[in-house]
Amino acid sequence: MFKKILIANRGEIALRVMQTCRELGISTVGVYSTADKDSLHVRYADEAVCIGPPLGKDSYLNISRILAAAEITNADAIHPGYGFLAENADFAEVCSSSGFKFIGPHAEMIRKMGDKNTARETVVAAGVPVVPGSDGLISNVKEAVDIAEKIGYPVIIKPTAGGGGKGMRVVSETSQLENALATAQNEAQQAFGNSGVYIEKFVENPRHVEIQVLADQYGNTIHLGERDCTIQRRHQKLIEETPSPVVDDELRTKMGNAAVAAAAAINYEGAGTIEFLLDSDRNFYFMEMNTRIQVEHPVTEERYDVDLVRQQILIASGENIANRSYTPKGHSIECRINAEDPKHGFRPSPGELQVFHTPGGHGVRVDTHGYASYKVPPHYDSLIAKLVVHADTREEAIERMQRALDEFIVTGIKTTIPFHKQLLMTSAFKSGEFDTGFLENSGFTVS
Amino acid sequence: MFKKILIANRGEIALRVMQTCRELGISTVGVYSTADKDSLHVRYADEAVCIGPPLGKDSYLNISRILAAAEITNADAIHPGYGFLAENADFAEVCSSSGFKFIGPHAEMIRKMGDKNTARETVVAAGVPVVPGSDGLISNVKEAVDIAEKIGYPVIIKPTAGGGGKGMRVVSETSQLENALATAQNEAQQAFGNSGVYIEKFVENPRHVEIQVLADQYGNTIHLGERDCTIQRRHQKLIEETPSPVVDDELRTKMGNAAVAAAAAINYEGAGTIEFLLDSDRNFYFMEMNTRIQVEHPVTEERYDVDLVRQQILIASGENIANRSYTPKGHSIECRINAEDPKHGFRPSPGELQVFHTPGGHGVRVDTHGYASYKVPPHYDSLIAKLVVHADTREEAIERMQRALDEFIVTGIKTTIPFHKQLLMTSAFKSGEFDTGFLENSGFTVS
Repeated sequence: MFKKILIANRGEIALRVMQTCRELGISTVGVYSTADKDSLHVRYADEAVCIGPPLGKDSYLNISRILAAAEITNADAIHPGYGFLAENADFAEVCSSSGFKFIGPHAEMIRKMGDKNTARETVVAAGVPVVPGSDGLISNVKEAVDIAEKIGYPVIIKPTAGGGGKGMRVVSETSQLENALATAQNEAQQAFGNSGVYIEKFVENPRHVEIQVLADQYGNTIHLGERDCTIQRRHQKLIEETPSPVVDDELRTKMGNAAVAAAAAINYEGAGTIEFLLDSDRNFYFMEMNTRIQVEHPVTEERYDVDLVRQQILIASGENIANRSYTPKGHSIECRINAEDPKHGFRPSPGELQVFHTPGGHGVRVDTHGYASYKVPPHYDSLIAKLVVHADTREEAIERMQRALDEFIVTGIKTTIPFHKQLLMTSAFKSGEFDTGFLENSGFTVS
Repeated sequence: MFKKILIANRGEIALRVMQTCRELGISTVGVYSTADKDSLHVRYADEAVCIGPPLGKDSYLNISRILAAAEITNADAIHPGYGFLAENADFAEVCSSSGFKFIGPHAEMIRKMGDKNTARETVVAAGVPVVPGSDGLISNVKEAVDIAEKIGYPVIIKPTAGGGGKGMRVVSETSQLENALATAQNEAQQAFGNSGVYIEKFVENPRHVEIQVLADQYGNTIHLGERDCTIQRRHQKLIEETPSPVVDDELRTKMGNAAVAAAAAINYEGAGTIEFLLDSDRNFYFMEMNTRIQVEHPVTEERYDVDLVRQQILIASGENIANRSYTPKGHSIECRINAEDPKHGFRPSPGELQVFHTPGGHGVRVDTHGYASYKVPPHYDSLIAKLVVHADTREEAIERMQRALDEFIVTGIKTTIPFHKQLLMTSAFKSGEFDTGFLENSGFTVS
């Protein structure tokens, strides 16, 4: 087992990973930018190293500085968290070649899933359903027109190197295609340094349902059910839950098997997530694989009573994951509490937390690096807390979340707490009948 | 189901009860003394009524003011929490006669268990083992000497009306008995207004192991296993856990059956706890029954994944508790975080909380009314938070508690956090081999 792990991240996930390290008796090294010197992950780490100024490229994205921190502290492994370098294959590679165990998959697995088109070809070969579309990158307008007419409009143009919605274009007829293609390629080049795009059938009114997988070094690959992340705003997840209100045992088995096949196709190792679109006819299509721990992993942890970060570390240290059972129970929901003003277009609201009381009691979990007097810096992700509840049923979980949101008191900055309170009361959310366009199309606003 | 419940308490338990009420869709009325006007239970309640100045008799123990608050707010039930009026039979009676459902047992059940000697006679008749001793109150020295010589020294003199260690005297030979009896009677008269005392065999090096029971209005009485509350300082519990490190399935069944028999003997209704002494030969003896929710109830909630306050309310509203299953899993520990200075004799440390960061993550629960800038008043119980962990095994639960204690940051006042950190590292605690005298006799001190 590792003696010392460097956590190459900040905020709640850095603290989260350190919690598990400490339970396992592993020393921790925190790294931080000057903007984060008062952050809790710095205080909680056994050692902490300042790696530069606030800008990502100068600190949390700076591979050489992070490796230097690992060297001077004599760490033997590195956990990347999520975001920043978590899906950077070069980072995984250089960690290994520098003698640090990267807690996650090998570089080539990240590469295979990081390039969207390669990922698509890989999972198709493994029998996983994908949205009908081009077999590879689009080389010219004529090819785009032929494919779009073959699979039928509407179609969506997607960058092969992308993520998060950037460079995507929905096209509903041939006359729009040429312009849209040029714009998408241009945006892709600017955002990702790679202008490659491909075309897919645009799935209307889909849900976002993803499957958590775990795979060890011995070829054991299992899934831990789904997470429904359909409540999104501009492709940013806001609420996640498990089980999905629309997935039954039969569909769960099918999607779980597909996810396991996708992971096994690249001999995956570690914790990963296969994201699917689910249409209203219960067809599901592979979207992408995230080769890291996800923000919303706690809902799976609560339903399966398992520590996924612990499993990541155990897998990296050579443990066999088939040695324990994973039994699901009840219903779990996560609300992302962001430093944003939901009444004004979710604009960022950094600043000093004044009152900061987090809810407690049975079935409530809070993962946060916040505390009263902590200043939320403007440089990073706006997530300040994850509020997670677990209860016997979805209905009870919603009631529990409501009361926990009522008890969560933050003053000094604006947060998404009012958004969640009001969204949870809508008949759409209560009934479970919504799609990824719900927030944009339903007219829902926060008052 | 009730529409509105008044919670006749303060601090974390008031907040705790309100959480459950809110989940059940029941409105809440908080009551508060002037010392508690900034307390979270006031803020979280749907309505709050000031019932007087800080002194207990003027507010939280003032029956007429609490009933007036229930009347003006049109509450239909009253939850007493623990402490204050929770085991006051007159309060339970006058709630009922005033038309408010008392969420707890009927007055006569409280009376039967509140008088120690009556309780003892009641459970003996039900076949529950008790410590050998006098059959009733001691009327003179000669009687005391006869009984002590019959059951053998050491013996303990206990007040029939008491609790919390007041008025108790351990006697190891006849020559001490006359003085000890007079002192005990005198103390009992002063503390409880009742000089009645009885004599029991003094059980040496016992553990404190208690059984949680639930009983509904239809005669269903069940138990939810034990809590081991052996780590005590001057009869004040500091750490509680379930399962007990020394109770196996056979003993649990025996103790559970005895607890159910004791509760059934008085047709008990609601949640209650039967406290036992357990000696080193695995004999157990009834001590007393607490006819209310207890401070340490969360460890049972986490192990059985049940909300005991919800069960109390459902029972009071006429629900049948046999309608659900109760399956234990894993190990749970609670540390009481008190505003006390463990390096100076646990002296009270009221004052303003400055930094107040509570731990989070998988398997961690915090019940607290604290927040940064909250002023812990000097008038009440020193409990400011209950830190509860749940894990697969006792060893993992201890590791989780350690990391959570490390993450619990309180500045501005002294707390028992350093005590817990150091106690959990002792070989005695890790091995599970300790008795109720451990803190007094082991030489353990907090550095």
